[in-house]
Amino acid sequence: MVVVMVPGVDESQIEEVSSRLRLMGLTVHRTDARGRVTLGAVGDLGSLDVEDVRHLPGVQDVVRISVPYKLVSRTFQPDSTVVTVGKAAIGGNQVAIMAGPCAVESEEQVDTVAAAVARAGASILRGGAYKPRTSPYTFQGLGEEGLKILRRCADRHGLAVISEVMDTQHVPILERWVDVLQVGARNMQNFVLLRELGRVRKPVLLKRGFSATIEEWLMSAEYVLAGGNREVMLCERGIRTFETALRNTLDLSCVPVIHQLSHLPVVVDPSHAVGVRDKVPPMACAAVAAGADGLLIEVHPHPETALSDGAQSLYVPQFEELVVRLRGVAKAVDRTL
Amino acid sequence: MVVVMVPGVDESQIEEVSSRLRLMGLTVHRTDARGRVTLGAVGDLGSLDVEDVRHLPGVQDVVRISVPYKLVSRTFQPDSTVVTVGKAAIGGNQVAIMAGPCAVESEEQVDTVAAAVARAGASILRGGAYKPRTSPYTFQGLGEEGLKILRRCADRHGLAVISEVMDTQHVPILERWVDVLQVGARNMQNFVLLRELGRVRKPVLLKRGFSATIEEWLMSAEYVLAGGNREVMLCERGIRTFETALRNTLDLSCVPVIHQLSHLPVVVDPSHAVGVRDKVPPMACAAVAAGADGLLIEVHPHPETALSDGAQSLYVPQFEELVVRLRGVAKAVDRTL
Amino acid sequence: MVVVMVPGVDESQIEEVSSRLRLMGLTVHRTDARGRVTLGAVGDLGSLDVEDVRHLPGVQDVVRISVPYKLVSRTFQPDSTVVTVGKAAIGGNQVAIMAGPCAVESEEQVDTVAAAVARAGASILRGGAYKPRTSPYTFQGLGEEGLKILRRCADRHGLAVISEVMDTQHVPILERWVDVLQVGARNMQNFVLLRELGRVRKPVLLKRGFSATIEEWLMSAEYVLAGGNREVMLCERGIRTFETALRNTLDLSCVPVIHQLSHLPVVVDPSHAVGVRDKVPPMACAAVAAGADGLLIEVHPHPETALSDGAQSLYVPQFEELVVRLRGVAKAVDRTL
Amino acid sequence: MVVVMVPGVDESQIEEVSSRLRLMGLTVHRTDARGRVTLGAVGDLGSLDVEDVRHLPGVQDVVRISVPYKLVSRTFQPDSTVVTVGKAAIGGNQVAIMAGPCAVESEEQVDTVAAAVARAGASILRGGAYKPRTSPYTFQGLGEEGLKILRRCADRHGLAVISEVMDTQHVPILERWVDVLQVGARNMQNFVLLRELGRVRKPVLLKRGFSATIEEWLMSAEYVLAGGNREVMLCERGIRTFETALRNTLDLSCVPVIHQLSHLPVVVDPSHAVGVRDKVPPMACAAVAAGADGLLIEVHPHPETALSDGAQSLYVPQFEELVVRLRGVAKAVDRTL
Repeated sequence: MVVVMVPGVDESQIEEVSSRLRLMGLTVHRTDARGRVTLGAVGDLGSLDVEDVRHLPGVQDVVRISVPYKLVSRTFQPDSTVVTVGKAAIGGNQVAIMAGPCAVESEEQVDTVAAAVARAGASILRGGAYKPRTSPYTFQGLGEEGLKILRRCADRHGLAVISEVMDTQHVPILERWVDVLQVGARNMQNFVLLRELGRVRKPVLLKRGFSATIEEWLMSAEYVLAGGNREVMLCERGIRTFETALRNTLDLSCVPVIHQLSHLPVVVDPSHAVGVRDKVPPMACAAVAAGADGLLIEVHPHPETALSDGAQSLYVPQFEELVVRLRGVAKAVDRTL
Repeated sequence: MVVVMVPGVDESQIEEVSSRLRLMGLTVHRTDARGRVTLGAVGDLGSLDVEDVRHLPGVQDVVRISVPYKLVSRTFQPDSTVVTVGKAAIGGNQVAIMAGPCAVESEEQVDTVAAAVARAGASILRGGAYKPRTSPYTFQGLGEEGLKILRRCADRHGLAVISEVMDTQHVPILERWVDVLQVGARNMQNFVLLRELGRVRKPVLLKRGFSATIEEWLMSAEYVLAGGNREVMLCERGIRTFETALRNTLDLSCVPVIHQLSHLPVVVDPSHAVGVRDKVPPMACAAVAAGADGLLIEVHPHPETALSDGAQSLYVPQFEELVVRLRGVAKAVDRTL
Repeated sequence: MVVVMVPGVDESQIEEVSSRLRLMGLTVHRTDARGRVTLGAVGDLGSLDVEDVRHLPGVQDVVRISVPYKLVSRTFQPDSTVVTVGKAAIGGNQVAIMAGPCAVESEEQVDTVAAAVARAGASILRGGAYKPRTSPYTFQGLGEEGLKILRRCADRHGLAVISEVMDTQHVPILERWVDVLQVGARNMQNFVLLRELGRVRKPVLLKRGFSATIEEWLMSAEYVLAGGNREVMLCERGIRTFETALRNTLDLSCVPVIHQLSHLPVVVDPSHAVGVRDKVPPMACAAVAAGADGLLIEVHPHPETALSDGAQSLYVPQFEELVVRLRGVAKAVDRTL
Repeated sequence: MVVVMVPGVDESQIEEVSSRLRLMGLTVHRTDARGRVTLGAVGDLGSLDVEDVRHLPGVQDVVRISVPYKLVSRTFQPDSTVVTVGKAAIGGNQVAIMAGPCAVESEEQVDTVAAAVARAGASILRGGAYKPRTSPYTFQGLGEEGLKILRRCADRHGLAVISEVMDTQHVPILERWVDVLQVGARNMQNFVLLRELGRVRKPVLLKRGFSATIEEWLMSAEYVLAGGNREVMLCERGIRTFETALRNTLDLSCVPVIHQLSHLPVVVDPSHAVGVRDKVPPMACAAVAAGADGLLIEVHPHPETALSDGAQSLYVPQFEELVVRLRGVAKAVDRTL
């Protein structure tokens, strides 16, 4: 860490900052140049909040030389993590497709979609049983009954299952029925939940918060890895910006950024980001072209009667057509699908 | 709800949208004018997600005539809610001051602050025992032990206690020791927690998420009220924008906006928004001038050694001086403090 | 336009709003349903600012049924505009490549790049002669001398020229030397300049402002078309969000959104959006996969010595390799390049 | 400037970065600690774009020790700039009020407002003659005729005049008729215009761009000062965020931030920020409480018939009442008004 002092600062303030840094167990090197003092602080910054230093009296700026995360960083683990889920190896050369309805509504609905997406090339079935809804008055999901439906339909068609966990108390139930536990955008910084998922022995898919920076997102993944669970996938699902033409702004440039900073695989969910059916295929193609390791796509047999997010779900034939197109894009960027 | 169809849309699509609206239990009125069809849908929209309608084929735009929240709206309850906590009546004419350290570190620390803020005019003692920290490696709080310290110090100096709850499992512990349960910005859309807080018989202070719209914030409050707990205070603590000069951007205009839309009191936390000590007093004054019903301010006996957020904590003499100034501002806008 | 009145509003306010709408030349239809009044206003809204109506006393919400732009909309012109520039037909099936250095520095520099990008498949040479720089103390461009260099080098290698115009007074100079006049992000709402470009008989490439909504961007294009110049290309170059990992957030979902709303071609500039060389190729591929009609890419013979934005310029061999990859992506989405 | 290299970077890259810094005329000091190299670069950074260094190969981060602006900084000039305009001394102890209609419509309209605001305590009359409008089809202002009306009405009531300049070609006209030339938010980075205003001998009020950081805003002011005009006032008018309840988000915390960084006065325009009449008074009070040196407020004799932004204009009696309240707030924070 490099601490830049305000020009002309009192010697006493420099002393105070230095001794504070030493109290934190750091070694401090002082440099004076052209009336400007900088302090280099070396040591284990793991438990240090750099913001606490930035605002000490007399400090102008602070550069953290080491990143705040460790286990998720590519410096710590140069080889990409490959998460194996059923037939899929996410983070390897093949792009994985996770598809299914937004919410589980009935066995018939899920089975129809499961059959169709399995046939088209998906390897993981998605579907919400516990639904985070903005309004307390809208459909909140079928709960454990929905998970059982997912499990049966997935097994019938040779698919794995991913579904969302919303609270620490539901973790054992999810662990029992699904193959991947999804953390939704609104819970990305639910640290008690993340800590609990560190103890789970199944992969976790961690969606990015609406307004989370990439660094905060990686820090949340660090919670899970620090708890002992190394199988984490990150999932971009759109960030909140001033633009309101679509539901959110899909930040595809996070894909190459994360691939540089971290060894964890990156999945993209174009359905929730755009929120409207006809924009899903171009953004799914763009995600694969940008280097995504997987896609999470909503498909519904009858989107117009869906209990949740029907407007963004693809019809089955649209999904089949999209997969063909995605194969071409994957090939153009030296991937398979 | 008014549904505006795309010009020149097929009659079959108009029919489909109309019948979908009727299925939702709404009465539909059709108007044709200059080649444009609009559908007025009247009825109980409580369980309807307007976005599901907006993206139906053939729909160009939708206006929700009624707001999605009910219990929190001023239409439902014209008189302002006044939440009584110890000696404070938040939402009444007097502006309430909640002050204390960011995190509880020791009984001595808390007692010193409690004595000082009580003397200066605060009525509620704040302090974190369960701390949401971005990094799994930084100080996470003293837990229940911290709550006991808060309780003892508050009682000794005639103050009430507010502290943060981070997970459904901690609710009974918080309920036992504190007077107000605070929901942090990162949990504003932790719907399972909100639902649980609806069952609690103590007031809740709900902080705004970093990127939550006012409408989403009110919907989260609606979860608590719908659960049976009417004593909710909203707390603005800065939103995330592109500006990085300070930690967040304090959105003071939300104060008059909420006072128009809702009967719930609005508290402002300038400390977390600005993140740096010397910007807290002007923004605290501005909050009262804008109409805030209360302030949440960090005070620490020795900010330079604080385990968390020391840079934004006021020294005790700064806090005392600020309270004097706040009294003048309150008086200028016909309030007391 | 549908105007929704507040429930229980005074009859006098309804009358005032109605008569105001009639004064604007609109026909007003009133509907009463369950205690709620809505006013449908039909007529030419061209000169109306809907915000002026939204905030009239007693008005709760307003839906503009027609979009505020006319000439740029796909409703007005269903067929896509194809802008012909030299050998390129932007907006047709072939994706056009515009490449070159950020700033014109010398004839040798530009000639080297021009030769290389022409060989690799670009059809238009880019280069800045008038540079908008945040600081008054940094290199501001060679001015007209730079334009002459661009012209000579482009002619030598069979390329067309695009360069930025920053002020109304420079329009005649640009018009003389270049084939496409570029409006930078910071001037997207320089309405006097846009009006002037409406009189020009050469194509205009209009970059999106850092924080411009798609609708504002289309309104700025409308200024140029309304002035008589129909040859406008839009160019996405990243928007400003809270994320700071890269310079800006490339909003690729604007590509399919604009293709639906407008007949104008959409070009993407990944270089300025990401600001760092190694992120340009994946985002260029993603742009083509999302449906972009053209790319604007910075290439420099020696990026490490560039006077401006060297960090984002591709080396010549990187550019050549990228073009090969882009051909594959274009083919996968049924385009050529 | 401190340049932090990636850990384990090649010696050749360190050499390349070092020699590049030396080419820029800087002296370079190298430090090696625990396998990490940092380069301290000392010298005149005036013409250097720090981003060009940040993205050099092998560089992990860069801290600019000195700020990029010079003339506008409080380090350069510790004493606050006081801009004298008619009877007002903006930046001194007294808070200045600039008030008037959004757009000049007629002599009668302006005269009524001028008489009223002068009586209530305003010292400067505002009014737009050249209007930046999103749509080419809405009212664009009366031009020079409007300026003459402003001049006559202001003179009649002992007021000074402020009005907006939109293009370099209009500068001489504005210079002739007004006392303060206003640069609108959309032109904050119109560098050719800013350069031109550096030559003008009248004060400039520079509005903040919708998405401009405080640093970019100060850099734009630097253009004017660098051109020789030291009389610049900054004006906050709301920034663009995700929140859509009001037109923009008024960033009042910029007031104390700028007062720390710069000696220039800060004016606040609550009218354009909130866009709706009843939110103007609380935000005007909050601005003064936060330390604003002046206010820019829209007042209209008949807001309901205004040709532009009527919804945000105060009625005359509202303005009179507001000024009384502002006096109390100013007094509470040791200012006059």
